[in-house]
Amino acid sequence: MEVEEKLIKKLGSGSLDFESYFSEKAMEMKASEIRELLKLVESSDVISLAGGLPAPETFPVETIKAITEEILKTHADKALQYGTTKGFTPLRLALAEWMEKRYGIPMSKVEIMMVAGSQQALDLIGRVFIDPGDIVVVEGPTYLAALNAFKYYDPEFLSIPMDDDGMIVDILEEKLKELKAEGKKVKFVYTVSTFQNPAGVTMSLKRRKRLIELAHEYDFLIVEDSPYSELRYSGKPIPPIKHFDDEGRVIYLGTFSKIFAPGFRLGWIAAHPHFIRKIEIAKQAVDLCANPFAQVIAWKYVADGHLDEHIPKIIEFYKPRRDAMFEALEEYMPEGVRWTKPDGGMFIWVTLPEGVDTKLMMEKAVAKGVAYVPGEAFFAYRDVKNTMRLNFTYVPEETIREGVKRLAEVIKEEIKALKG
Amino acid sequence: MEVEEKLIKKLGSGSLDFESYFSEKAMEMKASEIRELLKLVESSDVISLAGGLPAPETFPVETIKAITEEILKTHADKALQYGTTKGFTPLRLALAEWMEKRYGIPMSKVEIMMVAGSQQALDLIGRVFIDPGDIVVVEGPTYLAALNAFKYYDPEFLSIPMDDDGMIVDILEEKLKELKAEGKKVKFVYTVSTFQNPAGVTMSLKRRKRLIELAHEYDFLIVEDSPYSELRYSGKPIPPIKHFDDEGRVIYLGTFSKIFAPGFRLGWIAAHPHFIRKIEIAKQAVDLCANPFAQVIAWKYVADGHLDEHIPKIIEFYKPRRDAMFEALEEYMPEGVRWTKPDGGMFIWVTLPEGVDTKLMMEKAVAKGVAYVPGEAFFAYRDVKNTMRLNFTYVPEETIREGVKRLAEVIKEEIKALKG
Repeated sequence: MEVEEKLIKKLGSGSLDFESYFSEKAMEMKASEIRELLKLVESSDVISLAGGLPAPETFPVETIKAITEEILKTHADKALQYGTTKGFTPLRLALAEWMEKRYGIPMSKVEIMMVAGSQQALDLIGRVFIDPGDIVVVEGPTYLAALNAFKYYDPEFLSIPMDDDGMIVDILEEKLKELKAEGKKVKFVYTVSTFQNPAGVTMSLKRRKRLIELAHEYDFLIVEDSPYSELRYSGKPIPPIKHFDDEGRVIYLGTFSKIFAPGFRLGWIAAHPHFIRKIEIAKQAVDLCANPFAQVIAWKYVADGHLDEHIPKIIEFYKPRRDAMFEALEEYMPEGVRWTKPDGGMFIWVTLPEGVDTKLMMEKAVAKGVAYVPGEAFFAYRDVKNTMRLNFTYVPEETIREGVKRLAEVIKEEIKALKG
Repeated sequence: MEVEEKLIKKLGSGSLDFESYFSEKAMEMKASEIRELLKLVESSDVISLAGGLPAPETFPVETIKAITEEILKTHADKALQYGTTKGFTPLRLALAEWMEKRYGIPMSKVEIMMVAGSQQALDLIGRVFIDPGDIVVVEGPTYLAALNAFKYYDPEFLSIPMDDDGMIVDILEEKLKELKAEGKKVKFVYTVSTFQNPAGVTMSLKRRKRLIELAHEYDFLIVEDSPYSELRYSGKPIPPIKHFDDEGRVIYLGTFSKIFAPGFRLGWIAAHPHFIRKIEIAKQAVDLCANPFAQVIAWKYVADGHLDEHIPKIIEFYKPRRDAMFEALEEYMPEGVRWTKPDGGMFIWVTLPEGVDTKLMMEKAVAKGVAYVPGEAFFAYRDVKNTMRLNFTYVPEETIREGVKRLAEVIKEEIKALKG
């Protein structure tokens, strides 16, 4: 039989009942809607405000070239070999110093461990902390891929609404009181504290302090996911929640994806060594170690000061895009449409009048040549239908303006249809 | 308070009961004994035959330099950006072609997916296929990190003994009959089919074909882990089990760790697209995608023919080391000691007389200046005490000879003590 024929036969319907071999949990797994959605958009000439990608223009290619050349001369043995599960020690040390300098968090390398992007941190945290039924607090809306990562471990999500100052901590407190009365506890609160994905908002200083107090009072942990905090285009920096953590309750997640390049798949966990040790053991079984080649490159990037030099350049590149989106929203959006005004990050969150279903509206938008991410999937219980996430980092200003213009037209028609 | 003081306070005993936050499964997680062991050995002047590392001299540093320079010119946008979960399409295509050419397996890119080393493949396979209590067949001994990866998913291991022709498939058949009589089924058979880790043996052609027949007859899958098959120093190549798979029952795992560099943390799964699709969804929640930077480099490495050029060089480098270990074992080991005679790979498996406990003997060996891996942990039920794994790839010939000589002395004393 010819190779080609054999291949066709093998890939054909076949006799195996493939589904019958999957675990029960695998049967529940669903592909990320956003990723599926983006596949459709990719192949057309639609303006996509849907993505979550950094602009490739912000990747420091020349620096990477120089560093790579250097480390292949001086550190090839480390960069190309297996590494320890915790990560490349000089990089952990450099990150500890960087966090201390940048955020005023006293930090030692024993508190830092490297992971394959913060997505892996989310999965490992699920693995190490969540028992089925454990209560995990998330923001409403929250980072979709965090929901996906945690879901595998069967927590019960408690979704706390947000306003322009981030998670409404007073509402959390009420819920904590209720849970306490029922003899229940929260395992951890997950927050993207600064320039949140998807909402763009930042938790206020007052709420950060209050959240730490509540964590102590009601004995829960805080997972602070902070991929965007360095991308500040206006306003004053606020220290991370981790800054106020004297007990070791905060597990902080950092990533190189937005301040270096996502292609290195490199993030870090900063947490108490007791927690790091257990997460390290979990990671050992999962993939042995984070990419040593990328880690050695990242070490030079941080230790030689390239990171601090490069961040202002990313900010300079993104700020006009954010401003263009602000202006376009202001100019084109009809009455009844609201949006967040982030001081940084990558996303703006748009709320349409009640009754509009942005998921249903998506097809019309794509027909008009614009795409966004419907907000529904960002809510743990998918109970909000009239929101959407817009990205302003990937396409240039003029395209942003045109995209928002097209989107505004679709929304106007939708509102009209709703009233009519 | 000073930063230093704050740090000490934070890292001190503290008031948190850290253990109380861990999931039940996390409480069961144990660090890999081998990794812990190797930490001890690293810091002394002991000759370590314990490791499992490729020799850094085999890393094609100059090729990597040239490729990296090129792809940062031509493919920086792909290499530094997020990638799709399935992996970089040109690399998947190149691997499909390579496997077809090399192993005579008709293969399409839809059957290939990239992972962060084959360790991640093992974890994802556990996640996608194992329900608690599912029967997973392993070799006795088997790859330790596979046991660790699968264990999280609570399978029941069935350990099948091996001889010089690999897993004794007749014994497997008996067990399958017994299980069938009890109304039970095996979910999958896990085998490192060629130059096994830890035993070094290769499953014979006859047994490969019989295993595929049994898989059909008793309806189970086969996970064929094949990190070493390209490292053949003598004898004739045997096609992978996957070669005989007409139904899509074999999930084949490949890796760049032994034929390129482990520092890229890059492996691949070759399996029926039905299985690939589900594993892809599982991977999405776990870490989004394998390292695109490493993938683009690996693509050039395979597609431009460097892989095929480089494999003979690795073989040339390792063969004298294997031969040196064969000779030293022959020369120094006392009667009653047996070892495998691998045609390739990285390991030789040594069996001592009954009654010797290699784990207990380890301390004496280290005192004599040599280290090995006690065999116990490679058995699913830790029921064999008198075996050890020796690695011959990491240290040079003379060191191997000296290491084996020291080891033989320790063993002689141990046997003497046993008799006396």
